Amino acid sequence: MLNQERMNRVLDQLECQQMLITDPNAIFYLTGKWIFPGERFLGLLIRRGQEPVLYVNELFRFEEELGLKKIYTKDTDNIASLLAQEVNHHEDLGVDKTLEARFLLPMLKMGIAENYINGSIAVDHTRAVKDEKEIAIMKESSLINDAAMAQFKKLPHEGCTEKELADQTLAIYQKLGAQAFSFEPIVAFGKNAADPHHMPDDTVLKEGDAVLFDVGCKYQNYCSDMTRTFFYKKGPDQKQKEVYDLVRNANESAEEFVRPGVKLCEIDAKARDIITAGGYGKDFTHRLGHFIGLQDHEYGDVSAAFSDEVVPGNIFSIEPGIYNPSVLGCRIEDLILVTENGHEVLNHYSHEIEIID
Amino acid sequence: MLNQERMNRVLDQLECQQMLITDPNAIFYLTGKWIFPGERFLGLLIRRGQEPVLYVNELFRFEEELGLKKIYTKDTDNIASLLAQEVNHHEDLGVDKTLEARFLLPMLKMGIAENYINGSIAVDHTRAVKDEKEIAIMKESSLINDAAMAQFKKLPHEGCTEKELADQTLAIYQKLGAQAFSFEPIVAFGKNAADPHHMPDDTVLKEGDAVLFDVGCKYQNYCSDMTRTFFYKKGPDQKQKEVYDLVRNANESAEEFVRPGVKLCEIDAKARDIITAGGYGKDFTHRLGHFIGLQDHEYGDVSAAFSDEVVPGNIFSIEPGIYNPSVLGCRIEDLILVTENGHEVLNHYSHEIEIID
Repeated sequence: MLNQERMNRVLDQLECQQMLITDPNAIFYLTGKWIFPGERFLGLLIRRGQEPVLYVNELFRFEEELGLKKIYTKDTDNIASLLAQEVNHHEDLGVDKTLEARFLLPMLKMGIAENYINGSIAVDHTRAVKDEKEIAIMKESSLINDAAMAQFKKLPHEGCTEKELADQTLAIYQKLGAQAFSFEPIVAFGKNAADPHHMPDDTVLKEGDAVLFDVGCKYQNYCSDMTRTFFYKKGPDQKQKEVYDLVRNANESAEEFVRPGVKLCEIDAKARDIITAGGYGKDFTHRLGHFIGLQDHEYGDVSAAFSDEVVPGNIFSIEPGIYNPSVLGCRIEDLILVTENGHEVLNHYSHEIEIID
Repeated sequence: MLNQERMNRVLDQLECQQMLITDPNAIFYLTGKWIFPGERFLGLLIRRGQEPVLYVNELFRFEEELGLKKIYTKDTDNIASLLAQEVNHHEDLGVDKTLEARFLLPMLKMGIAENYINGSIAVDHTRAVKDEKEIAIMKESSLINDAAMAQFKKLPHEGCTEKELADQTLAIYQKLGAQAFSFEPIVAFGKNAADPHHMPDDTVLKEGDAVLFDVGCKYQNYCSDMTRTFFYKKGPDQKQKEVYDLVRNANESAEEFVRPGVKLCEIDAKARDIITAGGYGKDFTHRLGHFIGLQDHEYGDVSAAFSDEVVPGNIFSIEPGIYNPSVLGCRIEDLILVTENGHEVLNHYSHEIEIID
């Protein structure tokens, strides 16, 4: 069913009077209906003060009433002509940043609107502020992720490979009630943990290795995402402990700092300054975090490039890391929710050093 | 390394003098280099008589020389401005059908070319004609699929579910040397086989069930795709046998018919007429086949909508099916290569009725 409140928030932030939304995630967000059109056209036309129109291929016909006008399209239809019947030609038209040229070029040729602008920011800003229902689901998704992490840390054993462990994670998530991964799990042993984008391979576990899990699931379509770094059979040496403690301190200090009105770049700096002061600044090679929701990575970064002030309902990751192959690769990541008075960390799994075996 | 022969074939079929290719599959096809840019811009600008230019984000920097000019971009770069320095402003520019509005709109605003056209068909037509190297790899990919099918049919057992079987297929493919699925496997028992898009679920196998496997793998980046329908513990009854034989006859007659110069729609009709004459026309609800290569579904259908004549090097699926929940759901699918004098079926797994237990 059309979520009028969300749609009004999008329209309020839109620079023009009408927008064609084509991202299936955004269409689900606004209508509650998942449609994966593959190569077919799917579009939701929203207009100030007029009924929205959903264009959907007849292959995906459905009975539910969503509180909008449905127009079924055929493979042989000219989509631009159909749009021209509803779009106001004398106004600008916002389009999604991902609208493909095969649809946009015919619209331009036909001149269905005065001008075309990238309207995605209005949708992105709206989706960045989660409502109560979304917050409740995302809390649950992260609770499942906490419970899963407690099981993942028991998987490593003598002679196992990263791939073997990664292959066991989906079944654990599903038993805990998750529907799917939110992204392919990262499992990294030893030096591999010093590559932030490492993909699980046939590397065999050795005593003293760091064991990094960067994992997440989908629950009721919403994503979780968390990282912990364990040690196999032997604790960290002094230098490794120093690195671990720096990362932990960066994580916790940044989290502690989150409240309405602070800027995303300030949160990033909070963590980065600690790691830099500790002498490992050049080994923290990525942004501190990213927004998350229906998709694992949504618009908005916790980085020097974003000066927006955070507002209640924002949910993003805080994931400092130090990637130094000759000492340690380590990342500690939680999701955090901005609340009216401060914040709530959605992950509850401990940050303590843990030796597993 | 840039494949000059493939690039010339694209340019020969292009309506204009220059094209910006952004699909990572097409870029791999032309340069031999896989780059998955995620949200970053990736583009290969090809121009008649001039060196091609590859635009790639500095995050994906690589040393190999590909025989083209590389331009590294930063996240803060204005991509349209960079393109404007190389694109000929007084000529039309072909763009990929999937080029996103976030890149196309700034190009339009800046006016980097005279006009913009969807140039994908030139790439699609080129990719539809496989060269010798591709044919050799695709044969191997289908041989792996044949060998895998022989193992898949041994998986069903008392009380098993579709999901359980599907979960075991990837390891079998990997042992046989495949790198990944070409698509998520379809395993369907009984009535579920009468839904052509069924996804494996918790349905439990029963004696007398049809057991349909629609499966494929990737080998050296090229896809295979095959379907067989078995019977669990009990052969088909007379009506089911009639349906199975109709599908088999449709498959084999269509395959037999394939040679250079016949039209895709005629191949479709060959199979469809047999099923219609048998009284099940309304239960054959989809196109007869699709082209395949680096992607599981590539441009080109074996259907009434395509009147192109097939040429040597085309590889597509032949996959008639009858979906009648009260009798049987059944599909038999092979990949077929068009040769100079006729055709070669790339799958060798038998079409005979097989009872498994």
